[in-house]
Amino acid sequence: MREDLSRLMAERNLDAIVVSDKVHGNPPLTYLTKGAGLTQALIIQKRGAAPQAIINPMEREEAAVLGYPLTLSSRYKYHDLLREHDGDALRATVAYYARIFEDLGVQGRVGFYGLADQGQAYALLTALEESLSEIHVVAEFQDDLISAARTTKDTAEVARIREMGRRTAEIVRQTEAFLREHAVDDEERLRRTDGEILTVGDVHAHIRRLVALQGLEDPEGFIFATGRDSGIPHSKGALETPMHLGESIVFDIFPCEAGGGYFFDMTRTFCLGYAPDKLQRLYDDVFACTRHIIANLKVDTPTRRYQQMTCAFFRERGYATVEEDASALSGYIHSLGHGVGLELHETPMFRDTPDNTAQIAPGHVFTVEPGLYYPDKGMGCRIEDVIYVDPDGNFQNLTDYPYQLVIPMA
Amino acid sequence: MREDLSRLMAERNLDAIVVSDKVHGNPPLTYLTKGAGLTQALIIQKRGAAPQAIINPMEREEAAVLGYPLTLSSRYKYHDLLREHDGDALRATVAYYARIFEDLGVQGRVGFYGLADQGQAYALLTALEESLSEIHVVAEFQDDLISAARTTKDTAEVARIREMGRRTAEIVRQTEAFLREHAVDDEERLRRTDGEILTVGDVHAHIRRLVALQGLEDPEGFIFATGRDSGIPHSKGALETPMHLGESIVFDIFPCEAGGGYFFDMTRTFCLGYAPDKLQRLYDDVFACTRHIIANLKVDTPTRRYQQMTCAFFRERGYATVEEDASALSGYIHSLGHGVGLELHETPMFRDTPDNTAQIAPGHVFTVEPGLYYPDKGMGCRIEDVIYVDPDGNFQNLTDYPYQLVIPMA
Repeated sequence: MREDLSRLMAERNLDAIVVSDKVHGNPPLTYLTKGAGLTQALIIQKRGAAPQAIINPMEREEAAVLGYPLTLSSRYKYHDLLREHDGDALRATVAYYARIFEDLGVQGRVGFYGLADQGQAYALLTALEESLSEIHVVAEFQDDLISAARTTKDTAEVARIREMGRRTAEIVRQTEAFLREHAVDDEERLRRTDGEILTVGDVHAHIRRLVALQGLEDPEGFIFATGRDSGIPHSKGALETPMHLGESIVFDIFPCEAGGGYFFDMTRTFCLGYAPDKLQRLYDDVFACTRHIIANLKVDTPTRRYQQMTCAFFRERGYATVEEDASALSGYIHSLGHGVGLELHETPMFRDTPDNTAQIAPGHVFTVEPGLYYPDKGMGCRIEDVIYVDPDGNFQNLTDYPYQLVIPMA
Repeated sequence: MREDLSRLMAERNLDAIVVSDKVHGNPPLTYLTKGAGLTQALIIQKRGAAPQAIINPMEREEAAVLGYPLTLSSRYKYHDLLREHDGDALRATVAYYARIFEDLGVQGRVGFYGLADQGQAYALLTALEESLSEIHVVAEFQDDLISAARTTKDTAEVARIREMGRRTAEIVRQTEAFLREHAVDDEERLRRTDGEILTVGDVHAHIRRLVALQGLEDPEGFIFATGRDSGIPHSKGALETPMHLGESIVFDIFPCEAGGGYFFDMTRTFCLGYAPDKLQRLYDDVFACTRHIIANLKVDTPTRRYQQMTCAFFRERGYATVEEDASALSGYIHSLGHGVGLELHETPMFRDTPDNTAQIAPGHVFTVEPGLYYPDKGMGCRIEDVIYVDPDGNFQNLTDYPYQLVIPMA
């Protein structure tokens, strides 16, 4: 949580943090500016002190809601520095930071966060480290401070994610209704009112409208994939494919609040009209796994354990898993879940790797999403819910949606 | 243009470039993968050779359209490396890059591009520089190679931006129509059919629907701001404000292709019903400036010259400009324009600073957007068109929209 930042800075022996960005929807900046919509701010927080914001004068109105001490960036006269340094932007930027650090009394071990072009970040931080003797640039590659704080959500954040869950489920409900209202022809294909075949592309266009009507954005797109495509976890679905009865449909949707805020993430697998036996068996096993995992969630347990538990569950039922073969393309071939927040995929991660030391804790919001994939058999299945661990350590399912494979058609 | 990459690598004495990313809509990756929708790819291009892609096996279908030699990332067994390095992700990642570089014969001066957390990028590139003796990490802070290539657009790119212009203008047209169809009450406020006052927030919601109906995204939002808010260039408009006759409305809209592709950017200033004289004068001067600048565009001229020309134009008419006071909050207080492509703001820039050595050239696509801002007088005005410099050096205006301040109301 945001209130953990000072404690985390102390633990990591950081004297200050600097969050900057020139990219829209940059999670670290959004986190520290509470979504105020700033695009060119620099946030500086010294250990034990409140954050301070250096902002573009054109964004002073948006920044006022922060309640931080604000400084207009024009105070540090970057353009004068650029002239002094004959247009060398790197030297001018180093001098600009030096002015800011001196003005705000920033020194010692400083961590830098926020998205940037990686080559530019390397150039700038190397130059700061070399040129400014009062500061030491601290490089955090793994489990950085801002990500660590973001891993646990406060009640205001959970309320926003819960509301995102409500709206996302509404989109899935309306998509089901849209599919159900179509006629079916003799070859078991869905037909539009104009007589044309309904395609996956038509459904995609409708889902995009539903997302907009909920006032949401889907910056990372969504997956609505049928048949063979549903057997490839990242396939978004080939647009020209006709919608057909009796085929697996994986619908995985992960919109975020307008303007780049909190995400939600849910998946249901559907089948129109009727389900072939082999698909129904796949579905039943994935659903049983989902229930098994959720029933066994416990605070203070390593998340890796649940990936192992999922692999064991599927292996016992005769499915291949990533545990035996990390490059497998059929069976259970991904990891069980991930945290959800200002990024679609954030800590805690559930992958079974030695760098993953995450343990389930109050405040976590994460997905549980087992799946089985058989592209060569033309089918796939995934079920995904979002779970919140409340302050009492109880597990709340934020995905209020039934589990039903078959969508009955008239 | 993409075909310039090898020439630019030669000019900069780069032996190879590496483009990676874990962020959606990362322009350098989108550029090198032609928008194939990959999220976890690593693209490596050696000087004089075709690009190669290392991809997540789950994205093999999307990657097939690239026409590049493809390698599945599983070949380099990152997870084994993570185990060997006891879960130290930084050491494992360095070893992973070392395997890839050896396999593909990458050595010498290597540039790195693509968005990443700046602290993580610094940690990784510092470690690569220290650990891998065969490569030297080249830091480009200013005018990096990928940005330089992207500055000039090929015909396929221009066709996409032109189509974006058509759709964006359609959204503005439909927004005008939406405003016009409302009733006006005795206090000159617009009323909805349910009798409630139409607010800026209502218009925002309608514009979002129009964007979705065009199949577009607006990841950076849009500006539809009235009265005082229209006098602050970056204000997006306070949602609760009633829509009122006789007030300036700045409508600046900058959507991109679905899935994170090419942007467009246009602005019109409107006023419902009638325009007060002082606003009409402001509008006439901004419009005259727009025409003056566009009429004077010439290939091989420094873009800075046009910012100077704009300041001179406004100063002669008695307005304050950034040229006298960089921190001014009223008058002409921003720069004239910017390139438009996979990023909303990219090179060529038009700011009048010593680091800006850009000259107008065939293939450029950029905005021309003079404006005047008087928040204390409750008004602002900006007009923005997108200009394409074709291969013959002719200037084509990609913004097909009339210039008319007043929207007549029934």
